[in-house]
Amino acid sequence: MQRPPAEIGMTIDEIDTPALVVDLDIYERNLDKMAMLVNNAGKKLRPHAKMHKSPAVAQDQIKRGAVGVCCQKISEAEIMVEGGIDDVLITNEIVSPEKLARVARLTKKAKIGICVDDAGATRALNDACSREDAYIRVLIEIDVGGHRCGVTSPAEALELAKLIKSSSNLKFGGLQAYHGSAQHKRTALERSDAVSGAADIIRKTKKLLDASGIDCDIVTGGGTGTLLHDINYVEWDELQCGSYAFMDADYAKNKLNDDQFGTGFEHAFFVRTVIMSVNQPEIVVADAGLKAIASDSGNPTIVGHEHLTYRMTSDEHGCITVSGKERFELGEKLMLITGHCDPTINLYDWIVGVRNGKVEKLWPVSARGALS
Amino acid sequence: MQRPPAEIGMTIDEIDTPALVVDLDIYERNLDKMAMLVNNAGKKLRPHAKMHKSPAVAQDQIKRGAVGVCCQKISEAEIMVEGGIDDVLITNEIVSPEKLARVARLTKKAKIGICVDDAGATRALNDACSREDAYIRVLIEIDVGGHRCGVTSPAEALELAKLIKSSSNLKFGGLQAYHGSAQHKRTALERSDAVSGAADIIRKTKKLLDASGIDCDIVTGGGTGTLLHDINYVEWDELQCGSYAFMDADYAKNKLNDDQFGTGFEHAFFVRTVIMSVNQPEIVVADAGLKAIASDSGNPTIVGHEHLTYRMTSDEHGCITVSGKERFELGEKLMLITGHCDPTINLYDWIVGVRNGKVEKLWPVSARGALS
Repeated sequence: MQRPPAEIGMTIDEIDTPALVVDLDIYERNLDKMAMLVNNAGKKLRPHAKMHKSPAVAQDQIKRGAVGVCCQKISEAEIMVEGGIDDVLITNEIVSPEKLARVARLTKKAKIGICVDDAGATRALNDACSREDAYIRVLIEIDVGGHRCGVTSPAEALELAKLIKSSSNLKFGGLQAYHGSAQHKRTALERSDAVSGAADIIRKTKKLLDASGIDCDIVTGGGTGTLLHDINYVEWDELQCGSYAFMDADYAKNKLNDDQFGTGFEHAFFVRTVIMSVNQPEIVVADAGLKAIASDSGNPTIVGHEHLTYRMTSDEHGCITVSGKERFELGEKLMLITGHCDPTINLYDWIVGVRNGKVEKLWPVSARGALS
Repeated sequence: MQRPPAEIGMTIDEIDTPALVVDLDIYERNLDKMAMLVNNAGKKLRPHAKMHKSPAVAQDQIKRGAVGVCCQKISEAEIMVEGGIDDVLITNEIVSPEKLARVARLTKKAKIGICVDDAGATRALNDACSREDAYIRVLIEIDVGGHRCGVTSPAEALELAKLIKSSSNLKFGGLQAYHGSAQHKRTALERSDAVSGAADIIRKTKKLLDASGIDCDIVTGGGTGTLLHDINYVEWDELQCGSYAFMDADYAKNKLNDDQFGTGFEHAFFVRTVIMSVNQPEIVVADAGLKAIASDSGNPTIVGHEHLTYRMTSDEHGCITVSGKERFELGEKLMLITGHCDPTINLYDWIVGVRNGKVEKLWPVSARGALS
């Protein structure tokens, strides 16, 4: 773990670069808004911790009513439990025997759920739990349009539900119904269609389970991009939004409606960088490159200079092309809104929380690099 | 720091996923080959540690004759020195006062060099060293065609050399002449032209310095992509290759000559991943996504399945599109050659070294996340 880029009480200008900075007022508004929206819709919130990877942020979400968190990896779940989170759903498939043993052991420390989409892997999970004398809540992941993981028909879901119910150490907990690619569809109509299609698949699956007398406790899914559609569907009991707390430049490209872009949440999250070389006629160089900003969702936006482009041209450098009259000073610090918050946060050990121009929080990104 | 994905003595198949795996026989052949090439050319080798971020790998390079390492960041340099490396050149500009103070302090622990390309920043470096009663070797970075950092004319280099020589706590150490974008030019002719152009700029700069009675101790630069050209030029005294030790899929796209691709070095470095979902008709899903493999230089290659494409479709998933008859088994483990080794290694806390089917080394990636 690297040392923090700031100390509590410092001014924003004193924060070392590159650094992750969260505006705490905006962040708290985002958390409050989500809590209100989900509560008004009569649903539960289980935010995805894969975004922030920080038990401190998870605690802030739980304080506002979240029932627990989601994780993608057993290593992430272990770190959330160590950080005091007592209800974690692993929204992903795990197949390796060594990892399944860790899942089984973690059930002794907190309320753990996990997803399956395969009969063999379900049996292996039951074996692992049985060896550890552990019991676990198991959700069936259903493919609701993302065409990645999940069972691909209600009939397969029924077979798997029967297998879970007949397994000594598994408890059937419901359905995982998350449509990842729908989150980033650009128009509200496209997202609405995707959510409606996903809801159809949930209905058909629940109907078949119901006809076999199998009760479906919880249907969980949804995300920041589709939230304003998800909350109108009775099919989801629990929502898994993650990015809403911080936000990123990619979500800002979603159309909220005919007139507005965004998701209804505000950018709270920035990468701070410094200008380190200004010798080229039309290029200035800053100190955040490919190891400081994930490049999968395009370039970051420069706060206050939205017409310019920040390109991660190499591992440790970013370049800004400027016109002849517009210049940046050597040593000038900039705030960037990154394309994709999740993999960017995963590059850092610390998140610096600021309010009224001062550093107020230093959150360790404890699950940074929790890949397994 | 996350726990290691393997233990010494395990079989390759027992390594947890995702994991970075280095084939030690190939790695050592790469180190030996580089040592021989550079030695035969009468040059020194100062490998770039930004690639591996591991003092253990740096030690292996130094054992074979390397004079020290290069780093890009003061935090990286601090970690190399802590790891026992006693000669580090920071091949980059540093402008923040807090960082310059750290640079000055590090000179008390090891032989440290640094680059400058600006008079104001040079004065600030001298002030920082003066405050700490520290003395430092300073190289002038010259722009040899990359058009990023560096001074852009011999006259500017001369002015800066005079300033360094008149500064109380700085010692003029020579020229940093690295052409980053030349490394990835695809044909040998393009790379040869770029290196020849860079050598011209070095010659002109040295001539002007010489005419002013300024001796240029060392010219340092070069990389894995241009190595076979760099070694034929008297202009470089010291070479900074990094990727050669491990190699990646992007360098494999360079044409070595009319008949062959590559750089003359072998792939020693892999990301190990497991197939975790197989329900889609033409897609299988593996557990290495955007947080396990840097995506800036394209998709990884799948060892043994070079005709297939591995796409990092989301943060924790990779998808392989397969034809109807070709399948992967759930739980099957694959080796991937990643597009770009540097930012991929920066995602992991451990490198697993294997030989004869067994885990022999566990190297901590101590400077992972050393961004400042």
